Amino acid sequence: MPANYADRIRLPYLRQRITSAADAAKWIHDGMTIGMSGFTRAGDAKAVPMALAERARSENLHITLITGASLGGDVDKALAESGATTRRFPFQSDPSLRAKINSGEIMYADQHLSETVEQLRSRQMAPVDIAIIEAAAITETGGIIPTTSVGNSASFAIFAKHVIIEINLSQPLELEGLHDIFIPKMRPQREPMPLTAPQDRIGVAAIEIPPEKIVAIVITNTPDSPSNVQAPDHETAAIAKHLINFFENEVKQGRLEESLLPLQAGIGTIANAVMAGFIDSPFHNMTMYSEVLQDSTFDLFDAGKLDFASGSSITLSQQKSAQVFADFSRYKDKLVLRTQEVSNHPEIIRRLGVIALNTALEADIYGNVNSTHVLGTHMMNGIGGSGDFSRNAYLSIFATKSLAKGGRVSSIVPMVSHVDHNEHDVDIIVTEIGLADLRGLAPRERAKAIINKCVAEPYKQMLLDYVAAANLRGGQTPHVLECAFSWHSRYLDTDSMLLPEKI
Amino acid sequence: MPANYADRIRLPYLRQRITSAADAAKWIHDGMTIGMSGFTRAGDAKAVPMALAERARSENLHITLITGASLGGDVDKALAESGATTRRFPFQSDPSLRAKINSGEIMYADQHLSETVEQLRSRQMAPVDIAIIEAAAITETGGIIPTTSVGNSASFAIFAKHVIIEINLSQPLELEGLHDIFIPKMRPQREPMPLTAPQDRIGVAAIEIPPEKIVAIVITNTPDSPSNVQAPDHETAAIAKHLINFFENEVKQGRLEESLLPLQAGIGTIANAVMAGFIDSPFHNMTMYSEVLQDSTFDLFDAGKLDFASGSSITLSQQKSAQVFADFSRYKDKLVLRTQEVSNHPEIIRRLGVIALNTALEADIYGNVNSTHVLGTHMMNGIGGSGDFSRNAYLSIFATKSLAKGGRVSSIVPMVSHVDHNEHDVDIIVTEIGLADLRGLAPRERAKAIINKCVAEPYKQMLLDYVAAANLRGGQTPHVLECAFSWHSRYLDTDSMLLPEKI
Repeated sequence: MPANYADRIRLPYLRQRITSAADAAKWIHDGMTIGMSGFTRAGDAKAVPMALAERARSENLHITLITGASLGGDVDKALAESGATTRRFPFQSDPSLRAKINSGEIMYADQHLSETVEQLRSRQMAPVDIAIIEAAAITETGGIIPTTSVGNSASFAIFAKHVIIEINLSQPLELEGLHDIFIPKMRPQREPMPLTAPQDRIGVAAIEIPPEKIVAIVITNTPDSPSNVQAPDHETAAIAKHLINFFENEVKQGRLEESLLPLQAGIGTIANAVMAGFIDSPFHNMTMYSEVLQDSTFDLFDAGKLDFASGSSITLSQQKSAQVFADFSRYKDKLVLRTQEVSNHPEIIRRLGVIALNTALEADIYGNVNSTHVLGTHMMNGIGGSGDFSRNAYLSIFATKSLAKGGRVSSIVPMVSHVDHNEHDVDIIVTEIGLADLRGLAPRERAKAIINKCVAEPYKQMLLDYVAAANLRGGQTPHVLECAFSWHSRYLDTDSMLLPEKI
Repeated sequence: MPANYADRIRLPYLRQRITSAADAAKWIHDGMTIGMSGFTRAGDAKAVPMALAERARSENLHITLITGASLGGDVDKALAESGATTRRFPFQSDPSLRAKINSGEIMYADQHLSETVEQLRSRQMAPVDIAIIEAAAITETGGIIPTTSVGNSASFAIFAKHVIIEINLSQPLELEGLHDIFIPKMRPQREPMPLTAPQDRIGVAAIEIPPEKIVAIVITNTPDSPSNVQAPDHETAAIAKHLINFFENEVKQGRLEESLLPLQAGIGTIANAVMAGFIDSPFHNMTMYSEVLQDSTFDLFDAGKLDFASGSSITLSQQKSAQVFADFSRYKDKLVLRTQEVSNHPEIIRRLGVIALNTALEADIYGNVNSTHVLGTHMMNGIGGSGDFSRNAYLSIFATKSLAKGGRVSSIVPMVSHVDHNEHDVDIIVTEIGLADLRGLAPRERAKAIINKCVAEPYKQMLLDYVAAANLRGGQTPHVLECAFSWHSRYLDTDSMLLPEKI
């Protein structure tokens, strides 16, 4: 191993800052706010947070942790279990951390992913003391080259008093040039973002900060955690088929071209599988303007369907990662990674006319969507970017399998137990049963469409019965309030939403 | 009266199109979609819709009616009662129409006010057949000069096959030059909107359409319906005081200048009264970037507090209207009226950093807000622009009196019965009791802040009891689902949310 990492740390004096993770972690003191790289398991700091967790096991060391989105490895687990994390923004997906959030031990504010740095910039959140950023390299002028995600890293590095860099040797130097770092001006001096197509570059390739702010550099060699998406199955294939039929009709009606409009897909198995379904579709020259680029993005490149993909991170399965990074030059000029403020910015999403595809934990008969809270109370991951996209999209689609827990849970319920996206922001609900096109419909019509198109028996009849009872009460959005959550209560009591006679 | 209205209809051949309201209404046929001017009672078509209602009383004549927002006079009442309106977008506030909406006779899809023309432009809604637009004048080239609102009028006139103009002689010709008509390009060719301050003009002064599309012109002389806002009272004064104290501290902390950032205020008594409270505040050189400009805007001009106000309509009380239009040149260069697509555009609201002040029908302990549905089912008016602003604002404030119905209803409840704005979009809740600053707080902390700051006894203790029971169940957002709507159910049963022992 070269002793001075001249190719990775090109500003010579910074090489003196190379130190161990444990020594770097000493910059962090009790009560600090730490901004860390990492978005959907990609490009997260891997060594210093573990050293920090180690210290927190024996010291009084409590931090507020802000990231781009979810972290990989066991970083959130270690920081939560050690007691280091007391407050967490804006997204997570770790089971140990989740348990402490739901028990009330850790205060978690999940946020629209475009908004965290706005609130930091305007000092409406406590300032970031230390930024810990994974980098592929540091340039001759001290610019930080991110790795597989940009997330909030640029603003963290700009806002923080001190910056700790993890140079990850397992991340290829070819990543340089992939990123587009754009930082908007403070309000009221802010100008329009000059981005009018997914492939537009509006910033610079590195995070530019005064290099003297870099107080420690740690060398690591651990790859990103692979994504845990599962393979498409019959149901996700059926969802994809319904959507492709829908888009074929939109093209036929002259509302869309065969290149559609830029696509966004939320993180996870369903969105990834649905995107993969576009491989066998008549659409071509497609583009993505999304947050996380998953396996399906590269499958669509390989199939010749996709021209360009803009995101804030690349999160791949182990197998796909090996394939993509073995031949990265094949993809690099079709990709850009942006700050999550830009990838998720309302201004851009509205301007481009993004087609947004996100996943519902549950939806209700009127088209309200719960993306986050199991049984209305227990946090799963967080709202993520789904609110940034669904409110501002050309078309906002929510996909879910119609059943969960082996049929004991219906994903379509009388009333969602938590609302992340209300009826105004939900144009399409699609399950493996079918697709409900809700555009221009009043709530009573939405209920008919969703129940008839998206729900299987016996829940279909149960919902029709609910609607019949609710309609007797009247209203724009009829409900029997005292029964609105009876399905959830029954699940809590009997482990099933089914009525006893239907089991 | 001059026979040819040369000053009002400056393209001579169009004067031949002057006709009666009844004859103009003959252009409308059963099944058509009609786009009408009108935003918060201002600048609405007044004669042709009444003639249309008259026809519908004896003919089979059913229309879809799209407007900017609510209409004045009895237009919505007449069209609803005559059976003409069968489908209505995107906002209304008429009691007769509301009754038919809530009984399910009229299908009503309330929409984010910035989105209606996006959906029309992309043909995701049925096309507008006829536009009926109130105008102050028609220019030499056939350009339409709107009156006291712009709303969706420009796009309606552009999209419609035929346009009917109502020239309203009671609207002063001085309105010419007040408007800024900007129409974005179709996606994916759309460009950034070049608006970086409330006073920027980015469009033209008239709605430019091929003049041959104007098939009928009706001369009217009926003033806009006056606003029905009520005078400030002790409670709205207390809300204003809490907000001014909050902003004084924001300035002290260096987060805002004494000019604050551009203000938006929702329609109605509370928002108007709170804005009037800024007259006795230390702030100065303020600006507004709002939808409707109410009495308080002009009171703030008169007090020397406000430099400029951008809106989509001017809706005033009878007294204020007489004062303002008697001396309009005093105000004109401090005002601009825009299309509601621009006044409410996410791109601009986010860029300018608007401070959004909207009214809650009810809010819950976690900061979710119901703006529309009484007891979760019955539509009041509609979401209006509150979603456009609250999602994208620098700071999103919701104000409500803590009690309604003489204390039998608490505006703060365990769980709102309908969610228009979720916790992610609500930064501040303020009642006459106090102000809860929710920025950066997790749901359990939000509950403490809201209950302690915003709620009076006995509801305060009742909410503390609910939280104690909910916390035993755990979760990020603790609830006792089967009791979450018990306050609403009790109100339905006993006409009061109070527990029997508290009455």
